[in-house]
Amino acid sequence: VRTRDHRRLFADAVDGDRGAAGRLLSMVERGGENAQQVAALAFAPSESIDAVIGVTGAPGAGKSTLTDGLVAEARRAGHRVGVLAIDPSSPYSGGAILGDRVRMQRHADDPGVFIRSMATRGHHGGLALAVPEAIRLLGAIGYRTVVVETVGVGQVEVDIAGAADTTVVVVTPGWGDSVQASKAGLLEIADVFVVNKADRPGVDQTVRDLETMLDLDPLAASVERDPAAPAAWRPPVLATVATTGEGVAQVWEQLCAHHERLARTGELERRRRRRLLDELERALVGQLRREVRLLADGDAYREVADSVLAGRLDPQAGAERLAALAGLAERGPGR
Amino acid sequence: VRTRDHRRLFADAVDGDRGAAGRLLSMVERGGENAQQVAALAFAPSESIDAVIGVTGAPGAGKSTLTDGLVAEARRAGHRVGVLAIDPSSPYSGGAILGDRVRMQRHADDPGVFIRSMATRGHHGGLALAVPEAIRLLGAIGYRTVVVETVGVGQVEVDIAGAADTTVVVVTPGWGDSVQASKAGLLEIADVFVVNKADRPGVDQTVRDLETMLDLDPLAASVERDPAAPAAWRPPVLATVATTGEGVAQVWEQLCAHHERLARTGELERRRRRRLLDELERALVGQLRREVRLLADGDAYREVADSVLAGRLDPQAGAERLAALAGLAERGPGR
Repeated sequence: VRTRDHRRLFADAVDGDRGAAGRLLSMVERGGENAQQVAALAFAPSESIDAVIGVTGAPGAGKSTLTDGLVAEARRAGHRVGVLAIDPSSPYSGGAILGDRVRMQRHADDPGVFIRSMATRGHHGGLALAVPEAIRLLGAIGYRTVVVETVGVGQVEVDIAGAADTTVVVVTPGWGDSVQASKAGLLEIADVFVVNKADRPGVDQTVRDLETMLDLDPLAASVERDPAAPAAWRPPVLATVATTGEGVAQVWEQLCAHHERLARTGELERRRRRRLLDELERALVGQLRREVRLLADGDAYREVADSVLAGRLDPQAGAERLAALAGLAERGPGR
Repeated sequence: VRTRDHRRLFADAVDGDRGAAGRLLSMVERGGENAQQVAALAFAPSESIDAVIGVTGAPGAGKSTLTDGLVAEARRAGHRVGVLAIDPSSPYSGGAILGDRVRMQRHADDPGVFIRSMATRGHHGGLALAVPEAIRLLGAIGYRTVVVETVGVGQVEVDIAGAADTTVVVVTPGWGDSVQASKAGLLEIADVFVVNKADRPGVDQTVRDLETMLDLDPLAASVERDPAAPAAWRPPVLATVATTGEGVAQVWEQLCAHHERLARTGELERRRRRRLLDELERALVGQLRREVRLLADGDAYREVADSVLAGRLDPQAGAERLAALAGLAERGPGR
């Protein structure tokens, strides 16, 4: 198995070999030269992806169970589905991740579903690159509907949500008032709100809070994403009990409606193009960051670092001096 | 007032002019050339700062009220205190921020306390730079104990916590089980755990959960930060009712104990040196990012971008081509 090269693994994955698909995703996740070769193989015009759905929200909101239900809906509609579960890798979360995956077991024998966890810790900037590449890989090997599930509500999650065409934000009754949702930055990224665990008290209040927030600024979501967007989409607020499946079909319907609208207005294509250009910029920054590491081996870097540590030069001034030494300010392509 | 230059503003701030201090912090927050000039003025060997305390945790955990209590303790101990409240700027959170600040009103007439909100949204990488600079500015103008309060539990907050000598993680009873705390990455950054709102049910269980997590790996916190760290500090788990002040003095005692240990073992100096070098690297990456923007104006960038959008070249390969065109791979200082 060890001798199969990327091309062979890719061909096998396209033929339905899930082990090959898993190995390719591991390569993408680890980054480096192998990741680059796999990404280049999987790169294709965006037509290889039908829909990318982001599912995000606070820990414990039931995102995995909801994702499970959405996968079932997608299968019923005839789509092959890839799931990327972005998990923080921590010595203690192993059990929880296992738990999430166990819940997904109902799809384990379905060749039309591919579920994969990706770690977040230790990747930082790298993750934002790996997720779009993993999405494209899944599309290229035939899982053209991709669900990206993220744990947490921080900037990393907001960045990952940026890789989705449609983002579902999951909250729970009593999870917090509307101000908390707003504080966490959820309002800006939500295309669909789901109040899960709707069998608990407080669901009506939470739905009302979210609707009030949307009343205050119905353009919030789409304006944040694209000030030039056509007629706004008001994120629907839906109540679900994901464990019993209650309300999940309605969520799927709204996802389809949102996707249809994106495609019809040309916004889907615009978003995808913008994301690709963002990705190019991030990749370029990553490339430059590697150059910084090389710089760090030079004498000039050590001298500047000593000046900073001695309190003679602040870090920003030190960085400017190093950039000037590297000749960055003086040259560039196309000039 | 408009004509006062940075030096004059700085001198006035050192003399206790809080308006001048506020204007300098605004400059630091906005970034750019002014920020750089202020940062250079405020940069000094780390002796100008006594202690940097981070207070972080989930939204609604009562961080502002606890911070308020810790400020009172610090004042009782004779320290001048600066508070940086890192708030997500959202059209809807204005009220909440106001509410937080109103709670802090008891210090409003105390010239030994300076409280300042900083926005997170729209800064991304920039924030991580602005916070250390703002901390140094506060130290340089005489607020040598600085409390950095962050809303949320995402990567941005973890990064900001990296600017603190000692980090307090605030949770509430029933906020979530130990796995959730771990998922949110709190275990790795906590030097002191506070279970706030201890008048609510479930406080004992939450304390037990946290202690169990720490039992599982008592080295977790210090090892994550520095594998070569001397004898580990086990983060104490303290219960508080910040609104009544119950338990806050004990938190302050533990903060002092942790700080004393850091100073005694030389770890304080090591951490601060490491942070300065991290800052230098981030500043260099920021510098390079600006170069990327310049590159983006060139013909080569447009050609590469077109290839990416046409599906001929993946973003990573495009970035490598641009970096090669910029001559980055061939040159560097000190070689």
